[in-house]
Amino acid sequence: MKNLLLYSLIALFCISCSNHAAQQGIIKVETPSRPAGQTDVLGLRCEPLPTVRVAFVGVGMRGLAAVHRFLSIPGVEIKALCDLEPYNLEKARGLLAHANFTPAQEYSGDDGYKQVCERDDIDLIYICTDWLSHTPIAVYGMEHGKHVAIEVPAAVSLDECWQLVNTAEKTRRHCMMLENCCYDRFELATLNMAQQGVFGEIVHVEGAYIHDLRELNLNDRLTEGSTYTPGVGNTEGDGPGLVGYWKKWRMAYNIEHSGNPYPTHGLGPVCQILNIHRGDKMNYLVSVSSDQFGITAYAEERYGKDSPQAKQPYKLGDMNTSLIKTEKGKTIMIQHDVTSPRPYSRIHLVSGTKGFAQKYPLTHIALEPNAHNQLSDHQLDSILTVYEHPFYKEAGKQAAELGAISHGGMDYIMDYRLVHCLRNGLPLDQDVYDAAEWSCLVPLTELSVQNNGAPVEVPDFTRGAWDKVKGLTFAE
Amino acid sequence: MKNLLLYSLIALFCISCSNHAAQQGIIKVETPSRPAGQTDVLGLRCEPLPTVRVAFVGVGMRGLAAVHRFLSIPGVEIKALCDLEPYNLEKARGLLAHANFTPAQEYSGDDGYKQVCERDDIDLIYICTDWLSHTPIAVYGMEHGKHVAIEVPAAVSLDECWQLVNTAEKTRRHCMMLENCCYDRFELATLNMAQQGVFGEIVHVEGAYIHDLRELNLNDRLTEGSTYTPGVGNTEGDGPGLVGYWKKWRMAYNIEHSGNPYPTHGLGPVCQILNIHRGDKMNYLVSVSSDQFGITAYAEERYGKDSPQAKQPYKLGDMNTSLIKTEKGKTIMIQHDVTSPRPYSRIHLVSGTKGFAQKYPLTHIALEPNAHNQLSDHQLDSILTVYEHPFYKEAGKQAAELGAISHGGMDYIMDYRLVHCLRNGLPLDQDVYDAAEWSCLVPLTELSVQNNGAPVEVPDFTRGAWDKVKGLTFAE
Repeated sequence: MKNLLLYSLIALFCISCSNHAAQQGIIKVETPSRPAGQTDVLGLRCEPLPTVRVAFVGVGMRGLAAVHRFLSIPGVEIKALCDLEPYNLEKARGLLAHANFTPAQEYSGDDGYKQVCERDDIDLIYICTDWLSHTPIAVYGMEHGKHVAIEVPAAVSLDECWQLVNTAEKTRRHCMMLENCCYDRFELATLNMAQQGVFGEIVHVEGAYIHDLRELNLNDRLTEGSTYTPGVGNTEGDGPGLVGYWKKWRMAYNIEHSGNPYPTHGLGPVCQILNIHRGDKMNYLVSVSSDQFGITAYAEERYGKDSPQAKQPYKLGDMNTSLIKTEKGKTIMIQHDVTSPRPYSRIHLVSGTKGFAQKYPLTHIALEPNAHNQLSDHQLDSILTVYEHPFYKEAGKQAAELGAISHGGMDYIMDYRLVHCLRNGLPLDQDVYDAAEWSCLVPLTELSVQNNGAPVEVPDFTRGAWDKVKGLTFAE
Repeated sequence: MKNLLLYSLIALFCISCSNHAAQQGIIKVETPSRPAGQTDVLGLRCEPLPTVRVAFVGVGMRGLAAVHRFLSIPGVEIKALCDLEPYNLEKARGLLAHANFTPAQEYSGDDGYKQVCERDDIDLIYICTDWLSHTPIAVYGMEHGKHVAIEVPAAVSLDECWQLVNTAEKTRRHCMMLENCCYDRFELATLNMAQQGVFGEIVHVEGAYIHDLRELNLNDRLTEGSTYTPGVGNTEGDGPGLVGYWKKWRMAYNIEHSGNPYPTHGLGPVCQILNIHRGDKMNYLVSVSSDQFGITAYAEERYGKDSPQAKQPYKLGDMNTSLIKTEKGKTIMIQHDVTSPRPYSRIHLVSGTKGFAQKYPLTHIALEPNAHNQLSDHQLDSILTVYEHPFYKEAGKQAAELGAISHGGMDYIMDYRLVHCLRNGLPLDQDVYDAAEWSCLVPLTELSVQNNGAPVEVPDFTRGAWDKVKGLTFAE
């Protein structure tokens, strides 16, 4: 909150005094200068790790599914499990035992993650905690020489984004946000098509996180005796009666914040398609939220008009829409809605000078010279086969077998790639600048919403190197 | 251009000096005070006209189809036809002759429309000219005691919006914009559902005009010997090789302007659902455009890299996205793209606390308690039958028979309703405030785009009466 007030003051100052016509009216944010002796980590390569020794911090909802997936990833050792809830540790321990894995050391308590990071026989800290603890744990991990992989969003403030960047640059450790939607089959196929010029010059893209989480957000976490169902609470199409978030941390965040607190699922795949910080960069955004109607209406119906849930004020509007303009003149539209009754959607829309693709609510592709009409089902199947991404050709079968714990495959591909790159000393698919760029929408959309949709600068987290790498590539 | 500079100056002033926290940073626009003795025209009723004597000004593309439709509307006399091109008059004359209608008086030349408006045996001027002449003709018509119906957008500047409002209020004449998409079957069904509470409280809506007009915009108008095909050049799914706009007026506009020059097809239906100026009002908007890539790429391919068309600078970005916040906390997202190869879309999305509907790219509805899944085809058919709008129950059969000249029915329903209300002395379905509100996005989105997406105030064209009428109703 303090930060936001500060930014608002900076904003007013810049609106009044800016002489730079092209930036007129844009709320500026501070870009801290790079500490002396530090360089960027674009294309960072580290020592190959024939076996990746991993520790999981947070093995509740997402973390438990991650542990489950890692049982099938070649070349890993699960050395440690860390959680504040004994119940979660028990479940994770059970998964290892069931797969005849060597038991992992277990950690708990407020300092549990520090003890994990301080060990000298761990390579990767895999962080699946609540949003507010992502950056502190990741920074502590890197400071102790560990690579870190962080659930989304990696950071919730600009200060945290810069902490991640600065720590990764200083320690030369990998810091990857676990943006699983970048590994979805259709997203990867459209990325492949975009990179091969099928859509021509990409002009406009859209993404979203539209997922009715009203029930999940109002529920308490697992009660004793409830059953672990892999992927539950995370998967499209979840029905009623399921588990909630630990101590309702997600609702607590939404009560206190506006803007788009969860932008990365929609943003990641389209930023990859636009080569953000690999030839283009986000310059500014505007963001407008509806008021909140949905969670209150739902709480009134479920708990009664006089219930604490119905009377609770919620800052997060039901629908947030944000627009981003890039240096190369492209636009990105990103939406967030977790409190409206509607079908799940990440939109994933790609519009270029030669063609078009969209995933939700209807998977369709349209190409010149017949782009007024979508491809037939047969043509769609055919083109998706032709442009199937190499990741799926390589590991798609195994990915699909994991089903729900892998969101239909993408989570497995993500973990598979992370481990593959670490084992071979390759640059990771997503770097710390991706993590910062995609996560920075959390504070910046809130700042724009609080200023009636005023344009807000998006920092260049590479500090000048956004055009150094020419196009996104995945190391092999 | 002068106006935009002026608004930018007002903008800077207001950003610097505004003390009103809620409006901080919003670019203000001037709301002229209402001339003394003038009152609003909300719910305006005029003398019943058993026969509506109509004059068509502009009988080229849209106007010719309108003449064609009016041959089937009961209770009208076509008294006059006016156009700058003898060729268009000839076509319109032929339609009347073919239907055994009494020949209409014909007018041409720069003052043709004035001579039409000055006649004393005409009730309604039906205006289907290029955008820049809509307001001047409409104002002249009202000043001469005529009701006016104007193709979209009714106005292209704030000054023109206020001219329409002030002239309608002064002369007490009807001024209706011909927003035909408000009469589409699905749009009317969802309006009906919204009004009956099926979606709960409406929170967020979307509309668009996404229609690849590259060919049409670069073509010359009909050449001698080409054949008139009803509806051609206006209909979804137009193929290549068709006619263009008179003297390429649409392209000329797009060369000179940014923002969203054609917002009303998407905006009209969702503003009706939100009861804009009937209990809610638009407060401010933000608007961001991509750069222009599409028309140049297309021109290079069609005419060569060195062609005048390929070298022509175009101000209009390919994709414009605008966000509007209403007084009651609702949001509206509106898009415009006429230069990208992709399927036609007006989106038409309605999201409320109880349910959801969307038309493009997939017509689907989802309702509580199963809103995570769209209704089955059978359920969708069934609910659309239950909530079929009374207009379609009344005139749907006749509308459908007109096919292409009626855009599948909606244009006929629009004309039918216009004439029905005039014949019975009823308020029209769309009033002059709708025309001004929906059209004002033309200049206001441009102003926002020119200021890096800065928020721009949307004026209250009712000047304080936006909450006087409680909800949209159609007179019977």
